Amino acid sequence: MNQLLLQYIDTLNIPERLKRSTKYSINAGGKRLRPILMRLTCEGLQGDCEKIYPAAVALEMIHTYSLIHDDLPAMDDDMYRRGKLTNHRQFDEATAILAGDGLLTNSFQVIASANVYNAEEKVYLINRLTEASGMEGMVGGQLLDMEAEQQEITIEQLEQIHRLKTGCLLSFAIDAGSYLAGANDKTRFILRQFAEYIGLIFQIQDDILDVVGDQHLMGKASGSDQGNSKSTYPSVLGLDGAISHKKSYVNKAKQCLEQAGLKGSRLEGLTDYLSERDL
Amino acid sequence: MNQLLLQYIDTLNIPERLKRSTKYSINAGGKRLRPILMRLTCEGLQGDCEKIYPAAVALEMIHTYSLIHDDLPAMDDDMYRRGKLTNHRQFDEATAILAGDGLLTNSFQVIASANVYNAEEKVYLINRLTEASGMEGMVGGQLLDMEAEQQEITIEQLEQIHRLKTGCLLSFAIDAGSYLAGANDKTRFILRQFAEYIGLIFQIQDDILDVVGDQHLMGKASGSDQGNSKSTYPSVLGLDGAISHKKSYVNKAKQCLEQAGLKGSRLEGLTDYLSERDL
Repeated sequence: MNQLLLQYIDTLNIPERLKRSTKYSINAGGKRLRPILMRLTCEGLQGDCEKIYPAAVALEMIHTYSLIHDDLPAMDDDMYRRGKLTNHRQFDEATAILAGDGLLTNSFQVIASANVYNAEEKVYLINRLTEASGMEGMVGGQLLDMEAEQQEITIEQLEQIHRLKTGCLLSFAIDAGSYLAGANDKTRFILRQFAEYIGLIFQIQDDILDVVGDQHLMGKASGSDQGNSKSTYPSVLGLDGAISHKKSYVNKAKQCLEQAGLKGSRLEGLTDYLSERDL
Repeated sequence: MNQLLLQYIDTLNIPERLKRSTKYSINAGGKRLRPILMRLTCEGLQGDCEKIYPAAVALEMIHTYSLIHDDLPAMDDDMYRRGKLTNHRQFDEATAILAGDGLLTNSFQVIASANVYNAEEKVYLINRLTEASGMEGMVGGQLLDMEAEQQEITIEQLEQIHRLKTGCLLSFAIDAGSYLAGANDKTRFILRQFAEYIGLIFQIQDDILDVVGDQHLMGKASGSDQGNSKSTYPSVLGLDGAISHKKSYVNKAKQCLEQAGLKGSRLEGLTDYLSERDL
């Protein structure tokens, strides 16, 4: 994935500073969770895994843009991300805004120009990806998240924010994986439910790590959510409540996998990893 | 166009503040130059003008997003646009960033979900639009523009910036119009040249108006480019030089129209309008 992402940027005829800035944030790494989810889904359903790459590259570009914009002073105002300076701290705000805009725009080009898809597949993927990342998805979630700061919100509102802000892209990863594997409608429906649980598990663990996590491992200050009075699962449910909430979602996610015939697949292992991860 | 744009936003299930913010910038108006160019091109070539609308809506959404982001404090730091407060002044910076991100993302959905296009047409339009608005197009141009501030640049560098920053989207408008009208390759090639000239005429007149324009008509402070030491055509060529430079492009643009069999078409009138407009 890293190579594919950097190769794509390198093929572009763009200003040097834009190239450095986008590659900087791509190189900042991350777990590549979304591409992994797409691949494991496709693999579990006996699909041709070569087909996932353009969609996975596009998805990771969108994820990267969203981190760059979320870190901006007007948003979360973060100085570090994964142990490195955030994009706007390493470069400047204007460059960070434009690097984000560029990654977002070009992500759709990666799909639209991919050789491995026919036109119908491209249109399907772009429709789903704009839905997941646009105003009815991630962008809307980020806005609700900003509005929720300094406010007391219910667990339902918190889940709605995370469903949009994080869940939609994770969901796209799994849906694209099952679509490209040619899965039937029933399996795809069940896996969309699985994706919902995965998103919530991911987010609850994120919030838990913010309370108990190892700052050195995570490369950012733990307790930073508390600092800016964000609502989190531990703040709404307490730490123990958050942990048991997460466990119930892990059970539900595994039930979905069983129904989709994916019990014992690598997706099951990934579910445990996401629930227990320490960074 | 205004109605179609607002209708699209209204169909979306999105946070209230995101709806108000995107509609605010859409309502701020603008000349709708890009949709008009697309329509006049399609009409001049005897195409079915109904086909342009989703592409024109998408294009205008991208144009609107680019204005919102360009006005941000980290970019041009503008307080007014078309006589109204800029988006981030009316709302706040976070909302403006997200409104821009949202308009950009959903613009591709407008094309990908349009009933009037088949899958191949959607893919063609999305490929061309991402090229025009992405890192190799408008976003790259905006970055070069930021870098050029406070610097002496040559007329060639200035034209390269405008070609990317403004020209690419105008060019998309004309290319999409001729593509959707089913024009032949030769005509489309000539009209792409026409589009280049139109972009430069548009920009030179913009720069001229910044020196001699009526602040009340334009709804922004004239002389604002001078204030932040931006390179402009008048600053590089002098006012008379800029005017004669513009006239030579008007002649070349009209030659293209003649070659494309569009002499006397409404595109010719638009060329004069763009060259002589006072806002």
